[in-house]
Amino acid sequence: MRMAELVRRSGVPAASVKFYLREGMLPPGEATAATQARYDEGHVRRLRLIKSLTGVAGLPLAKVKIVLGLIDEAGDADRPGLDLLGKAMSALPPYPAADRVAPGAPPDLPRARRALAFLGQVYEPGFVAVAQLERALAALEDAGIPLSDDRLAVYGRHIRAIAAEELAPMADQAPGDAVAYAVLGTVLHEPVLLALRRLAHQDLVAAAEQATIDSTTDRKEPS
Amino acid sequence: MRMAELVRRSGVPAASVKFYLREGMLPPGEATAATQARYDEGHVRRLRLIKSLTGVAGLPLAKVKIVLGLIDEAGDADRPGLDLLGKAMSALPPYPAADRVAPGAPPDLPRARRALAFLGQVYEPGFVAVAQLERALAALEDAGIPLSDDRLAVYGRHIRAIAAEELAPMADQAPGDAVAYAVLGTVLHEPVLLALRRLAHQDLVAAAEQATIDSTTDRKEPS
Repeated sequence: MRMAELVRRSGVPAASVKFYLREGMLPPGEATAATQARYDEGHVRRLRLIKSLTGVAGLPLAKVKIVLGLIDEAGDADRPGLDLLGKAMSALPPYPAADRVAPGAPPDLPRARRALAFLGQVYEPGFVAVAQLERALAALEDAGIPLSDDRLAVYGRHIRAIAAEELAPMADQAPGDAVAYAVLGTVLHEPVLLALRRLAHQDLVAAAEQATIDSTTDRKEPS
Repeated sequence: MRMAELVRRSGVPAASVKFYLREGMLPPGEATAATQARYDEGHVRRLRLIKSLTGVAGLPLAKVKIVLGLIDEAGDADRPGLDLLGKAMSALPPYPAADRVAPGAPPDLPRARRALAFLGQVYEPGFVAVAQLERALAALEDAGIPLSDDRLAVYGRHIRAIAAEELAPMADQAPGDAVAYAVLGTVLHEPVLLALRRLAHQDLVAAAEQATIDSTTDRKEPS
């Protein structure tokens, strides 16, 4: 297809398409004349992915380039390894503040270390998510509501079940698609989970209120 | 206690304490002289709460005032009602963009309506979290990975179990404390859940890789 159709099919403006071509984020089309090229379905899919990463997922351009590089790298492998997925996850927000990234050995993160040992998971202080967990646990302590082991056990069990369900589709995906899915899915399912949690709170409180009303109202219906 | 001790105990600087007093966010102390006042444990607790709300929870001052007002309102009730908790939740980020808040009747949110019907929960388009769910579901569609009913069922079941565990402590709390806990807990547990989810992904991928290595390695150990 020509550029005009690529623009129409992908929903990405021509100026942006040309920018992505110049930046090497989109591979060049097949040259058909000095100033013309032909594009295929792969270009449409790539542009839609870039659009999702920069748009709804909210990644800055430098991080989108990293993710695209990892997808291309994964394309040559049998399947995406933990190393590749870990790198892709590190490209996702929230980003640690520059002053928190110490050079050299990763810092000790005692709260996260203890929590992960409790859950029977590996403690790897270099993982971005481990530092996130440490900060989140410290914030709860600062607010006077430290996380109890009982609560941690409940969180760990249910979040693990959710994570297993989320990884299941990757078994049938090509490696590049699996990396793209892991990145988009990690970012885009987060707000779904957080919204459902707040709605579950409201639903549970409403149900408890209704139960109180029912138990304090004189029953006038025939039994 | 005097101002100096209040500052030391709460960890809030004197200039900020005076600002909160002027703004009515902290009740005045008991006047002991024209320019002196005595403060009590209630003042320390209130300052720590303000510090958590503005600091780790990241609420802007206008929203902190709303939450404090709701806590004071709850203090006079037998227990905090859904109405009060709903208002407190509405003071939390993420805030809908001004151009998304239509005056008058709330908009129809078809994806959230369908999802909540599927989960057997009330659809209340005026709730901030319902609009959040609608936007999150639309973003997944835009990215080409719409949420399936199977996935929604798994999310709904496990998130509801988490939410029930989170609400349990509120049964034993005074109404004002329950509102404070609901607000702080909602915001501060979110990053814990998100970090645990990413770590569960990594742990599950690592376990799958190890299983593959084990099954392809020649067993040299005596059986």
